[in-house]
Amino acid sequence: MNKHINRAVLRMSDIYAPTLKEDPSDADIVSAKLLARAGMIRKEAAGLYTFLPLGLRVIHKIENIVREEMDTHGGQEVLMPFVQPAELWQRSGRWNAYGAEMLRVIDRHDNEFCLGPTHEEVITDLVSNELRSYKDLPKNLYQIQVKFRDERRPRFALLRGREFMMKDAYSFNADQESLDETYDLMRDAYINMCDRMGLKYRIVQADPGQIGGNATEEFMALAETGEAELVYCDCGYAADIEVGECHPQPTQYAADALTKVETPGVHTIAELAAFLNCEESATAKAFSGKGEDGSVWVLFVPGDYEVNECKADRLVPGFTPLTDDDMAKIGLPKGSMGPVGLPEGVKVAADESLRGIERWVVGANEDGFHYVGAKHGEDFQVDAWEDLCTVHEGDACPHCGLPLKAARGIEVGQIFKLGDKYSKAMNATFMDEDGSEKPFMMGCYGVGVSRTMAAAVEQSHDDFGIVWPAGIAPAHVCVIPLSAKPDEVTEAAEKLAGELSAAGYEVVLDDRNERAGVKFADNDLIGWPVQVVVGKRGLAEGTVEVKNRATGEKVSVALDAVEAAVDEIIA
Amino acid sequence: MNKHINRAVLRMSDIYAPTLKEDPSDADIVSAKLLARAGMIRKEAAGLYTFLPLGLRVIHKIENIVREEMDTHGGQEVLMPFVQPAELWQRSGRWNAYGAEMLRVIDRHDNEFCLGPTHEEVITDLVSNELRSYKDLPKNLYQIQVKFRDERRPRFALLRGREFMMKDAYSFNADQESLDETYDLMRDAYINMCDRMGLKYRIVQADPGQIGGNATEEFMALAETGEAELVYCDCGYAADIEVGECHPQPTQYAADALTKVETPGVHTIAELAAFLNCEESATAKAFSGKGEDGSVWVLFVPGDYEVNECKADRLVPGFTPLTDDDMAKIGLPKGSMGPVGLPEGVKVAADESLRGIERWVVGANEDGFHYVGAKHGEDFQVDAWEDLCTVHEGDACPHCGLPLKAARGIEVGQIFKLGDKYSKAMNATFMDEDGSEKPFMMGCYGVGVSRTMAAAVEQSHDDFGIVWPAGIAPAHVCVIPLSAKPDEVTEAAEKLAGELSAAGYEVVLDDRNERAGVKFADNDLIGWPVQVVVGKRGLAEGTVEVKNRATGEKVSVALDAVEAAVDEIIA
Repeated sequence: MNKHINRAVLRMSDIYAPTLKEDPSDADIVSAKLLARAGMIRKEAAGLYTFLPLGLRVIHKIENIVREEMDTHGGQEVLMPFVQPAELWQRSGRWNAYGAEMLRVIDRHDNEFCLGPTHEEVITDLVSNELRSYKDLPKNLYQIQVKFRDERRPRFALLRGREFMMKDAYSFNADQESLDETYDLMRDAYINMCDRMGLKYRIVQADPGQIGGNATEEFMALAETGEAELVYCDCGYAADIEVGECHPQPTQYAADALTKVETPGVHTIAELAAFLNCEESATAKAFSGKGEDGSVWVLFVPGDYEVNECKADRLVPGFTPLTDDDMAKIGLPKGSMGPVGLPEGVKVAADESLRGIERWVVGANEDGFHYVGAKHGEDFQVDAWEDLCTVHEGDACPHCGLPLKAARGIEVGQIFKLGDKYSKAMNATFMDEDGSEKPFMMGCYGVGVSRTMAAAVEQSHDDFGIVWPAGIAPAHVCVIPLSAKPDEVTEAAEKLAGELSAAGYEVVLDDRNERAGVKFADNDLIGWPVQVVVGKRGLAEGTVEVKNRATGEKVSVALDAVEAAVDEIIA
Repeated sequence: MNKHINRAVLRMSDIYAPTLKEDPSDADIVSAKLLARAGMIRKEAAGLYTFLPLGLRVIHKIENIVREEMDTHGGQEVLMPFVQPAELWQRSGRWNAYGAEMLRVIDRHDNEFCLGPTHEEVITDLVSNELRSYKDLPKNLYQIQVKFRDERRPRFALLRGREFMMKDAYSFNADQESLDETYDLMRDAYINMCDRMGLKYRIVQADPGQIGGNATEEFMALAETGEAELVYCDCGYAADIEVGECHPQPTQYAADALTKVETPGVHTIAELAAFLNCEESATAKAFSGKGEDGSVWVLFVPGDYEVNECKADRLVPGFTPLTDDDMAKIGLPKGSMGPVGLPEGVKVAADESLRGIERWVVGANEDGFHYVGAKHGEDFQVDAWEDLCTVHEGDACPHCGLPLKAARGIEVGQIFKLGDKYSKAMNATFMDEDGSEKPFMMGCYGVGVSRTMAAAVEQSHDDFGIVWPAGIAPAHVCVIPLSAKPDEVTEAAEKLAGELSAAGYEVVLDDRNERAGVKFADNDLIGWPVQVVVGKRGLAEGTVEVKNRATGEKVSVALDAVEAAVDEIIA
C-alpha cells in the first residue's frame, strides 16, 4: 500500500464532491449508481464520463500501481497519439475489418484518421524503424491513455463506455522463448497489480477474439454483475466458459443397428430422452451454421451440452448460425436434424467425446422421426472431431478432476501472445543473430484502468455505499468532528487529522457545517476505509470512535492509540 | 526540485531511446531536431507525435510540477471527456464560430461531436447543475489532458502540433473580487511553475483573442525562435506587441492652414517626409478596413508607427483590411488616403497621440497630392480616439519611462478573467447571498505541457544537444563508465550510481558496450544536467570526472565528494 501520495489533509468543505440522494435515472448497474451518488463521476453523454476529484484520485491510484508494476517488470512507458492515421490500419488490413466500433474521422485536408481503439499498428510501425537488431530485443513498451470505441449500446457506465482509460503494453521479442518469458513477467506484474488493488479475481483462459494470437489469459474481477461467465476450481484452474475445455461424458443408447423411430410431438432433447426412456447424454444434439468461406456445417454435441459458438468459430472461421431461409435453401429440416442423409456438400463435425460412442441417437432429417443406432464411419461420416461444447458448473476440472464451480466476472486485464500476426502484416522485422531478417514475435498486455475502478465497486459495496479497498481508496481515513464551530471537538479533529497525515495516511477532514446524520451517510457512501468520529462525550474521556467501513465495526479508541487502530484496519 | 521520483537506476542498455545522427528531414525548428535526435519524440503524422520513454519522463516532470502548484493554490483535479457533444457548443454559440481548427466527428448513430480543443462548455455545463449556492464558491477545477486542434499547417513539432497536452483550469467565482483573488493565486502558481521548471520567462499583457474575457496575461518562455514578439522593461513591465500600450510622440509640421501640396512620385511615408523635409512623426499614416457590421473605417497613426490590427479589432469588431475591390467600390484611393473629403459614411479613428497635434500632414485622397495643415474638428472630424499603434523597441515603458527592449517568446501559459461570457451564454447561475440568481464569474488558466517541453529546449541547448534544466530533466545524473566489460571501472560506476540514487537523484548508468566518443556524444545530446565519467586512470587515484552539461566545465572529483559536486550543479 502506498501511504505517501498527497500528505496534505483534504477538507470536505473544499472538495468538489457533490453527493446525490437519488440514483441517476439512467444508472443501470450498481457502480454507475454509487460512483455518481458519491460525487466521483458524472455522465457527459452516452458512454462519456467526467471524473470528479475523488473519482480521479482513485484513477490515479490505479494508474500508479499499474505504472510501478510495469516499471519493475521490464516495461517502459511511452505515449502514442490518440488520433491515428488510416494508412497504418490499411497496412495491417484492419481498417476495413475493425467494424463500427472504430470511429473514423476526416481532417480539414480530407485525410482519414481514427480515434485509437488500440495501438498495435502505431507501435509496430514505430519500432520497426528503430529496433533493427536482435541485440535491441526484447523491449516492452506501454502507455496509459484514453481509448475510444464507439459501442453500439454504451452501458454500465465505466464498464462499457466509449471513451475509457487503458494501460496497453506491447512487447517485441526475438523468438517464442523470449515472448514466453515476457508473458510470464507480465502475468506476475498483473498478479501484483490485482493484489495491491485489493481485488478478488481469477486468472482465466480466454478467447483471443479480434486481436488474434495464440495464447491469452484474462484477469477477471469476480462480481455477480459481471458480463463474463467463468468456471474455476480450487486447484487454480479457471476459464471463460467460451473457451474452457469441456469433457462431456456421453452415454451409449442400446441399439445394434440403424433404426428409424417415429417420434411424434418430440421437439426437444428432453422430450426425446423421455420418449426413448434414456439419459439426455445418450442423444446427440445438432446445430447448423456456415463459415465465411461459404461452407455449411452441422455440429453434433452430447444432448446434455450446448454447442459453443466461440469454439465453432475456431473450427469454421466466421461461423454464423443458419437462418430459416438458409436452411430451406440448403434442404435442411428445422427440427430433427441428423448426420444421416444430409444434403450433398454439408459437412459434419462432432464433439471429441462422441468419438467413443459407437451408435448415436440423432434426428432423421424428417419431422417426427429420429434414428437410433446411427454408427459413425458407417451410416455417416464425421469430417472433424473437436472440443465443441460449452463447459458447465459441476463438470470435472480438466486439471484435477474435481467439480468446477461457476462464477461471473468483469475483465480488468488481459495478456496475449500475439506471435507474428502484426509484424508479418506490417513487414516489421529485425536482423537475427544469424543475419536473417525475421518478423518480431509480439505480445500485448492490457489493463482497463477506468473499468477496474468500476469493477472494484461492483465487488465491494453494501447498502450504504462503496467500500474501497485501501490500495485504491480516494483517501484512507476520514476524520469526522461532530461539530462545525471552532471548539474543543474541531480542534481535536484537526490535530488528529494532522497526526494521521504526518504518519503517512491520506486524510480527509469532514469540516462541513452539516448534521451528524448527513456526515455519516455521505462518508459511508463515499467509502473511505476508516472513519474516525470525534465527539464531545468521547473527548471528555480522551477517546474517539474508529469505524472500519468494510465490517461496520466501531470501537472506542484512546486518542493516542488511533494511529495503531488505523494501521490495523488498513493493513 | 523534486529529487524523489523513481529511485531505481536506469540503464542505457535497456532504455528505448534510439538516438539519431542526422536531423529528421522535416524538422523545422531546433526543438524538433534535438528531441527527435535524442530519442525523445517521434513524428507519427503531421502534428501527431509519440513520446518515447525519456521524452515522457520530461512530460511527467512538467505535469507533476503543474499538479503540485495547482493543488497548493486551490485547484482540484478532474478529467473531462476528450470527445464532446456538439450540443454544448451549440448552446454557447461556438459550434459555428470556432472554425476549422475544431475537428468535428459523427458517431455511429449520426450524433455530432468534436475532439476537445478546450473545455469551457463542458465544465460550465457540469458545474451549473452542482454548484447551486454562493456557499459552494469559489471552485477552481483543472485537468491535464490531450487536446486536439486541427491546425491548417502543423509545424515546429510540439510547438504547434494538432494533438497536444495541456493543463486547463476553470474557476467559478461569485463576484469580480473573488475572481481577482483566484486569478492572483493562479498567477502565483504559474510563477512557481515556471521557476521550478527553470524557464527564463516574462509575464506579458496579452490579447484575449477567441476565448474572450477582459484581462489576460501570458507566460512567455524567452527564445529567439518564438512566434510571439514582445517588449519588456527591467522595471517588470512586459507586453505582447499586439496589445502593448503605445504612446507615440508625434511632431507638429509647421503649417497654419489647410494647404494642398502637389507631391509627385511620393508613395511612402519616408518619401513624403523627405519631400516635405520633416520627421516621419510629423505625418499621419492611413489604414482602411471594415468591421463585421459592414462599417468602413480609416485609421490614422503617426507616420513612424504602424496600425495594430489587434487593437483595431477591439475598436471595430471583426476588423479586416479593405481589398482593392472594396476601396474602388467605396471610392477610396489606393494611395494618398486622408481624412479630408472622405466618401460619405466612412468613419475616422485616430491614435490618441494625434489628438494633441492640431494640424496634420495627410493624403488628399487624390494621387500625387497631400494636405498639410489639416485641422481636426475643423477640416475633418475624428469619430474615435484610441490606442491604435504597435509598440516599438525603444519606446518609453508605460510604467517607468525607460526605453523598452524587444524579445521573442513562446507562450507556455495564459491566465484569463473570462467574466460571465460563458455562464451567461449557457445560463449557468448560482443563488447569491441575497437570494438572487447570478451567472458565475469565471476565469480560465492554461499551461501547454508538451509545448513547455519544446520551449525549454528552444531556450536551453547548444551545438552538442539539449541542456535540460534540472527541474524537468529526464534524469539528473548520467554515470558513464569508460568500459563495458565487468571490471573495476564498471564496478565503481555501479556503486556510484547506486549511491547517487540512494541520495535521491534520478540516475542513469550508461552501461552500453560503446566507444567513449559515442557515449559522450549521446549523453551531451540527451542533455542530463550532470555527467560523471568513471575511467581507469582517475580511479587509480580515487577520482572521477564530473561534468556540468550547461557550462561544459569538467572537474576531477574524489569518489567520496561526488554527491557534493552533483548537489552543487543541481542546486
